[in-house]
Formats: sequence, C-alpha cells, structure tokens
Amino acid sequence: MSYFKKHGQLIEQAVEAIHDRGFYTPYPEHHKAYGEDGMSKGETQYHSHLGKRFDVLENSNDSAQWVGGEQSPYTDEALGVTYPSHNAETWVSRAQAVRKCWKKTSADDRAGLLAEALDRLQSRYFELAYATMHTTGQAFMMAFQASGPHSNDRALEALALAWHEQKRFPQAIAWEKPMGKSSLVLDKNYTAVPKGVGLVIGCSTFPVWNTVPGLFANLAAGNPVIVKPHPMAILPIAIVVATLRDVLRDSDLPEDIVQLAADTIEAPISKNLAEHPLVKLIDFTGGNAFGDYVESLSGKTVFTEKAGVNSVILDSVTDLDAVLQNLAFSLCLYSGQMCTAPQNFFIPEQGIREGEQLIPFDEVTQRFKQAVDNIVNNPKMGPGTLAAIQTPATLTRVQNYEQLGAKVLRIPEPVEQPGFKNARSISPAMLIVEANQSDIYSQELFGPIFFLVRTKDTTQSIELAASLASEKGALTCGAYTIDEKIEAHIRDAMEDAYTQVSFNLTGFIWINQAAGFSDFHVSGGNPAGNATFANPEYANKRFVWVQHRKLRS
Amino acid sequence: MSYFKKHGQLIEQAVEAIHDRGFYTPYPEHHKAYGEDGMSKGETQYHSHLGKRFDVLENSNDSAQWVGGEQSPYTDEALGVTYPSHNAETWVSRAQAVRKCWKKTSADDRAGLLAEALDRLQSRYFELAYATMHTTGQAFMMAFQASGPHSNDRALEALALAWHEQKRFPQAIAWEKPMGKSSLVLDKNYTAVPKGVGLVIGCSTFPVWNTVPGLFANLAAGNPVIVKPHPMAILPIAIVVATLRDVLRDSDLPEDIVQLAADTIEAPISKNLAEHPLVKLIDFTGGNAFGDYVESLSGKTVFTEKAGVNSVILDSVTDLDAVLQNLAFSLCLYSGQMCTAPQNFFIPEQGIREGEQLIPFDEVTQRFKQAVDNIVNNPKMGPGTLAAIQTPATLTRVQNYEQLGAKVLRIPEPVEQPGFKNARSISPAMLIVEANQSDIYSQELFGPIFFLVRTKDTTQSIELAASLASEKGALTCGAYTIDEKIEAHIRDAMEDAYTQVSFNLTGFIWINQAAGFSDFHVSGGNPAGNATFANPEYANKRFVWVQHRKLRS
Repeated sequence: MSYFKKHGQLIEQAVEAIHDRGFYTPYPEHHKAYGEDGMSKGETQYHSHLGKRFDVLENSNDSAQWVGGEQSPYTDEALGVTYPSHNAETWVSRAQAVRKCWKKTSADDRAGLLAEALDRLQSRYFELAYATMHTTGQAFMMAFQASGPHSNDRALEALALAWHEQKRFPQAIAWEKPMGKSSLVLDKNYTAVPKGVGLVIGCSTFPVWNTVPGLFANLAAGNPVIVKPHPMAILPIAIVVATLRDVLRDSDLPEDIVQLAADTIEAPISKNLAEHPLVKLIDFTGGNAFGDYVESLSGKTVFTEKAGVNSVILDSVTDLDAVLQNLAFSLCLYSGQMCTAPQNFFIPEQGIREGEQLIPFDEVTQRFKQAVDNIVNNPKMGPGTLAAIQTPATLTRVQNYEQLGAKVLRIPEPVEQPGFKNARSISPAMLIVEANQSDIYSQELFGPIFFLVRTKDTTQSIELAASLASEKGALTCGAYTIDEKIEAHIRDAMEDAYTQVSFNLTGFIWINQAAGFSDFHVSGGNPAGNATFANPEYANKRFVWVQHRKLRS
Repeated sequence: MSYFKKHGQLIEQAVEAIHDRGFYTPYPEHHKAYGEDGMSKGETQYHSHLGKRFDVLENSNDSAQWVGGEQSPYTDEALGVTYPSHNAETWVSRAQAVRKCWKKTSADDRAGLLAEALDRLQSRYFELAYATMHTTGQAFMMAFQASGPHSNDRALEALALAWHEQKRFPQAIAWEKPMGKSSLVLDKNYTAVPKGVGLVIGCSTFPVWNTVPGLFANLAAGNPVIVKPHPMAILPIAIVVATLRDVLRDSDLPEDIVQLAADTIEAPISKNLAEHPLVKLIDFTGGNAFGDYVESLSGKTVFTEKAGVNSVILDSVTDLDAVLQNLAFSLCLYSGQMCTAPQNFFIPEQGIREGEQLIPFDEVTQRFKQAVDNIVNNPKMGPGTLAAIQTPATLTRVQNYEQLGAKVLRIPEPVEQPGFKNARSISPAMLIVEANQSDIYSQELFGPIFFLVRTKDTTQSIELAASLASEKGALTCGAYTIDEKIEAHIRDAMEDAYTQVSFNLTGFIWINQAAGFSDFHVSGGNPAGNATFANPEYANKRFVWVQHRKLRS
C-alpha cells in the first residue's frame, strides 16, 4: 500500500503548522490517549528485552559481536541488553550499498513511510517510556512525553520540512526563450539529490528526542542513516530503529537504510564512523569537545547541538512567589539535566521590584530556596520531578559542590525514589556568587547545580547573560521584567547573542519546554550548536539541487 | 520615499519566477533597450575615471591611501584609477559600526533599496561594460550582458530569495495551548537576525556577475558588506558599490553599509579581512587553493565558487556539424575563460554515430578543428568571440601548449583585435590525448586549452567525466546522445557527481550560459564550490532565526 496516500494529509498539515507556528498537536501528549492498559503492557515489553540480544536489528547472524553496557539509574543494575556490533567499514558499506535504492524512492514515498513509522511508534510509547526511564534516569511521565509524543512531533516536523523543501521547485519545466520570430525551448528538470550516508550520534539524556530530528530529516531527504547511540542509552532509540526497519521491510525496501551501530564506553566507534570518507552528513548531540571535533571535520555537512550556559535575568515581577515556584520547578525538573534548563540566575544586589515594593536580594534567595525545598520535600511531587541522575560523574560533581568555592544556599541531599532503593538521586545544590566570580559560574556544570549571581543592577545582569551566551553558548534565556524598556533591552541584547528569551513565565509553562512546529530549538548562532530543530537550513543542507537541460528538437 | 513601494511588485514577481523557474527577464539583455547613445556616453563615462582617484567611496579624506594597478588586456596600459585603501581593522570596524542600523532596517526596506540600486544601475550598463572590457578582457557585448542585465538578474534573484526567506515565518503569533477549561497563551515572535559583517571576494574575469549574488543576498539579509575585488578588476564593481552607496545616502542610511576594500597584487589584504573575528560571512569566487583556505576557516559561514574541469561527452548526434559549431563557439567564447566553459571532450575511439553513419574519431577531431578555425578566421566574428586574455599567466600557459606532452590538433596563434594593436589575444590550443593520460587533462588549465580525449567507448567517457567532476569539481557537463538509455546513464552518473548536464545543445544556446531565476549555477555538491546561485541555503545561511516568547498575563 502507499503510505503517502495514508499519511499525505498529515504531512501537508505539518508543513502548514510549521509555517503558521501556532499550537499543533498531531500526537496527543497525555498518556491516557494511548490506552488504559498501556502502562502495564509497556512495562512487560520493556522487561522482555532485559538480559537478551536485541536481535531484530541484524539480518545475517554470522559476523556480529554483541555488545551492551546500559545500567539503570533507578536500580543500579545492568539492563543486560546486547546489540550487534561491527567495525565502521561494515556499517558504512552496508549503508552505501542501499544508498541508490533509497535515493530512487520518491520523496512522497519516503515521507509516507516515515510517517507510518511514527504512527506505529504510538503503540510503543509505554515501552519507550520504560526504556528511556531506565537508561536516562528520567521520571516515567517525562520519559513518556519526551520519547513518545514530543519526539514524534519533532520527527514529523523534520520529515515534513524536508519533504516540503524537496517539493519546492518543479520537477520539470519548459524554459522558452523568445528569439525574434521563433523561440528556443529547453526542457529542464530539477532533482534534490541526497548527499550520502548520514551518521546520527545520540546523547545519554534524551536518546530519542534529540536523535529523531536528524534521523527523520536525513531519511526524508533520501540519505541512509547509521544511528550511533550513546553507549549508556541505546534501548530507546533501538526501538525506534527497529520500528523503521519493520516499515522498510513491509515496503520491500532494504532494512539497512537505517542501522543502529551500538558501541561501548570502552571501545567507542564514533570517530571511525565520522571520519569515514563515505559518511557525508553528521548530526551530533552531546558535549562541546566532541561537538567541536565533529564541526572541524572537512568535507562533511555537520549539525550540532552542544552544551550551553543558560541564564535567567530577574528584574521586576508582579508576583514573586509565582515566579519563584515556576523557576524552582524548572531547575528541579529532571535535576537540571535538560539542555534547556537554566543554570545562572542574575539578581541585582538591591533586590527585585514586586509591584511597588523592593524585595531585598537575601530575601529573594531565601524564598527561592524555600520554593525548591517545597518541591523536594513534597513526597508526591519531589522524587517524580527530580528523577534520577543519568551518570555517576554528574552525581559526583554535585556532591563536590563545596569545592566550587561559592557561598552555599542549599545543600544537595540524597532523595529517595519510591520503589527503587538504589536510585541515583540528589536534590539541587544552590550557590550564591558575586558577578565578578565568573570563573565559577561561566562554565556549564551539567546537573543540579545552580548559581544565584549577585549583580550591580539589571544592566549588568543583561551584559553577563548576553556575553555568556555569545562566548559559551546558550539554548534558552529566561527574563522577568514588567518594564517595557528593560524588556526591549533584553530582547536586543540576547538577539545579538542569537539566544531566545522567554519572558515572565509562571504557572504551567517552563523555560525548559520547546514545542515542535512552533519553537525553534537551538538557534545555531552561538556556541551551543550550529543547527536548529528545525529551520529550513536543517532540511536544505541534506541534499543538493542538480538540474539537467535538454534542447527540445 | 519608500523604495519597497516602488519595487515591491518586482521583488514579488522575482520570488514567483524563482519558484516557477521558467523564462523571466526583468532586465532586457539587449543593449538597444538602454538607449541609442548609451554606447558613446558609456565610453565617455569610462574614460572619465581613468588616471583619477575613484573618490566617491571615501567620506573622510584624511586617512586613506590610494592604490590601484589595473591594466587593460586590450591596450596593455594602466587604467590609472586608484581606490581608497585601509588596513583590515579599519574596514571591519566601519562595517561593524553600522551593523545595528542596517539590522534594524526592515527586510522590506532593505529589499526595496537594493532593487532601487539595480534600477539605477541600468543607466550605467555601458559604463560598466567598458570598465569590464578593459579589466577582464571580455568583448564589449559580453561585458555589457555579463556585468549589466545578467548581473542584475542574479542580484535580483539573490535579494528576492533572501527577502522571501525572511518573510517565510510570521513575525508574531499567539500560541494558545488548551489546558482543560482554560488555555495558556504565549505571544511569540520570530526575527531573522543577520549574522554580521560579510566579506565578498571577487574574481578577475567576472568581477560583477560573480560578486553581486553574495553582495545582494548579504545586504538583503541585513549584513553590512566589505567587497574585496580582485586587484586587476576593481573598476566594474566599484561602480556597483558607488551606486549602492548613492541609494543608501538618499535613504539617510550610512554609506558604509557597503564598502569597497581594494588592494594590490603586491599587498593583498584578503586574509586579514577573512580572518578578522568580526567577519562572519565570506563569499569567494576564484582559485581552489584560496577557496579551500577560506572553507577551512572556523566560525565563518562560507560560500565558494572555485574551479572545476568541465566535460563534454560525445556519443551520437543527428547533425554533427551543428554540434561542432555549437561546441566551437562554446570554447572560443571569451577564450575559455568562463568557469562554465568545457575543457575536455570525450570521444569514443570508434567515432560518433550521426544517424545511421559512424564518423571516425579522426574525422570528428578534424571537423571540430575546422569549426573552430571558421570562427577564429572569420574577421567579423573571431576577435569579438575570442576577446582578450585577462592575465599574462594564462597567455603564457597557452603559449607553452607543447610542454603538456599531448598530440597537437590546433596550434594557438596571436589574434588581432581591431583598434587594439597591443591586445593580449590568442586562438585556442586543441590537443588530442588518450583516456589513460589523465595526468594531462585532469587538471584545470584555465584559458583556451582544450583536450579531445580518445576513450574506449561512451561508457568510459561517462566514467571519466563523472569521476573528474567528483574529484576535481565541475560546474557544467555537456552531452550529445540520441540514445535514451545512454542519456539516462549520463543523467544518473553526473547526478552522483552533483553536476548539471546540458543535452544536445545546438544553435543559439551554449553550455556556458546559466540563466538567472531558472538555472542553478554551481551545485555546491562537488569540489567546484560549496554554494549555489541561488538555492534556498544561499539565503538562509546568512541569518539566524531567533524567537522570543512572552506569557500573556
């Protein structure tokens, strides 16, 4: 059957939504939309993978080694799932072998097939959620949304944009030039030719959400893809890759159009893959060192999302408690392990204006701490919001908070995760620093470490936030002001640092969130990354327009 | 007045033409459309510049040095025009100083202003033509078209595309998320933020046509531009820059939004400008060594058009004489100094099929030589088609044709250019090589040196043309076949090398030509360059989408 016939309308709707940028929700974000018994079935499906080979990814059984070292941040136990492993040459030559076949599949058929995979993934959201929870440390509900509907949103956005850009110019036209009495006709055609094998390198905290945009954009543009997941977060994206391979097989297309190249911490293969001359496209999410390396490779088209230092500028508010509750939740959510989470909160030394009143600096920081305590100490809310810490290194960094040399406002302490006595979980460290202590707060300290920075005034706060974003990168910036002039100043300064600003968020909307079809994720204009989910460039750079002309005789 | 009001309709038409890709001619290409006495007036205007300071480019008279070393390939005399010169820091800091002002000018106003400059340039086409002729060596008619209407086409295409891409997403929307009984509203806005100072480095053969796309795309996207022309071809683009500065001044905007940074062969400043940290965008046309260097600079957005080795594949024809006449003209036109001119002609050893007949290899090459002789020896056609050689180095290369070690088919000889007894002009060298002599023909030999390559068969011809394009780059490929299977094979193979193919051109259309609004110039997918006049990427990479969100209270 034609999957484009089935899903073409959805794809067209998505293209429209991308250009409208209003609220659009093709995949409902609430788990109840996906069935009553989904949760228990998903848990069973997740458990069925443990201690076994994830063997649907390999057709020929002879040559693969089986590797895997994932460990649950909740149980501290190995998942025991193993995945087929080969050297880079094998993965790349398999991809190269199916390149022409995928190139010849029409843009419509490719988009339809990818939308079908997203359709099928809806029935695996709960399985994905448990797999995500036990690799990243996310709480169940975040894992469900981030690896389920929100990932599907971003994947659909990327594939729809790539489809649209390929359809943007006519396939064929007659170019008729008047030549006095007669005319001259050239038949011209235009083909979006895919660039070649794509490599998509995933991260450990959002293994699906951060991987699917590049994966689906590449596939939609006709490039076969090798997914190289983070060695500690393989299972979630393996489920996505397996689903894509199911649809390819059902379409009588080679499954190797998408491959999962798992590796281990001990024997990494990312560089071997990235440097392979037949790998033409690289999507990368992760740390700056490897990101900068990938960007430096010549002859590759590279898309990166690296790390940044995100700021919040506090100037004036109408309701300080509402603001602090919102910020407290933002920093507690998944213990600051979101790339969009704020790290530095710039507060003027004279305090923050609330209506007519000036709330002194010390009171602001104390009430901020209290708002965080209220979440941490709320047994119904705390553990589920803080969730678990993905990697032991992050936990150690938080535990060593005193070594940073800052004044301590809030001491991080172990957090119990009900049902998981070995969970790696800790409450936020909140530290107070002076504006001139930039050696402390101007680096990204991944995880639940937060700085309240005492500045001379809001002008200095803006200066510091903007220069940090320009020099170290930033994905988000929060700002609270009821002064229009200051708002304009912040917009201008952060625009110069190519950083988006969220103003005056309170209630059920947080700076961490980025909505598919509406919010551009990463601007591409500062050191936090060179790519955007998803601007037109994100699609256009994955193929080359080649035209031919023929004289009509 | 609002120039957008005056030219908005033209810009919208151009956007439509870009997406239709049919024939579109906003600026008629025939010189008679621009007035009866244009030619003599233009010559007077050109002469008025000689031996003088081109002083309209400098506002402050105190600090500039005046430099210039242009020399006419027709008279072998110095033009004596000098241009203001500064160190890189001065040019860049001037550009940086006006950056914010240009950024704040709306996309509409910028596009309108640029279209006004194109409008005014129409009255300077003849002046541009003489300036181009006496710097590049082009014949008058080519100089008129290339630096006049065809440049205006490409400039309008670039500015219209950049304008369109900036208008593609809404400036502001309300994002309304249903939250049970109520809803949550974020006011979002989207701004195309220019990347910063742009540097556009020109070449010596097409100083206007190759410079204006990057120049106008950058300006349309809000980036101030420093034009760094080739030291031997400054005057033509100086006229364009002066015209742009006129319109800026008439709009009460700082003229330094576009600057001309002339230098000399002895004291080049391109690297100082390119490496300046505030230079964010670089457009380059020229040789591979410098192009590769520019592409290797980190932290810059780079657009290159470098050199390639263009091929023609000869398989089968309906009328061999018509084909050879067409090819002879293609290689004689401006003595092969167009980046789109073919260099290698692949001909099977058993010859070429013409209808039912097989024309032997030796006869094909002899008749090809004859077709070239017919142009060269035609006093009405020869000198005007061959024109002059831009640089003495090219002339020397042609004169040393024997050193290449190939069999000589046609000896290059001096050509008289009527009215210019000192003209640097020479007829084409045509050489015969075997397929395995790739060391001879696989490098770009800029200028009138052409190889007829004897291949085993058309399959080998295709292989060689495709691998040359992949490895050395190619801007164009010509092919002659009346066999549909072979045509499909050529399309496929050259698509894999990201190279456009022109099939079966005869009569008044040549492989060298690329029409604005319809033909993509350079694919960006092979070593001949990473950019395209003008695909969506060409505009999108010049700005960054930054969005802001604000909670509606």
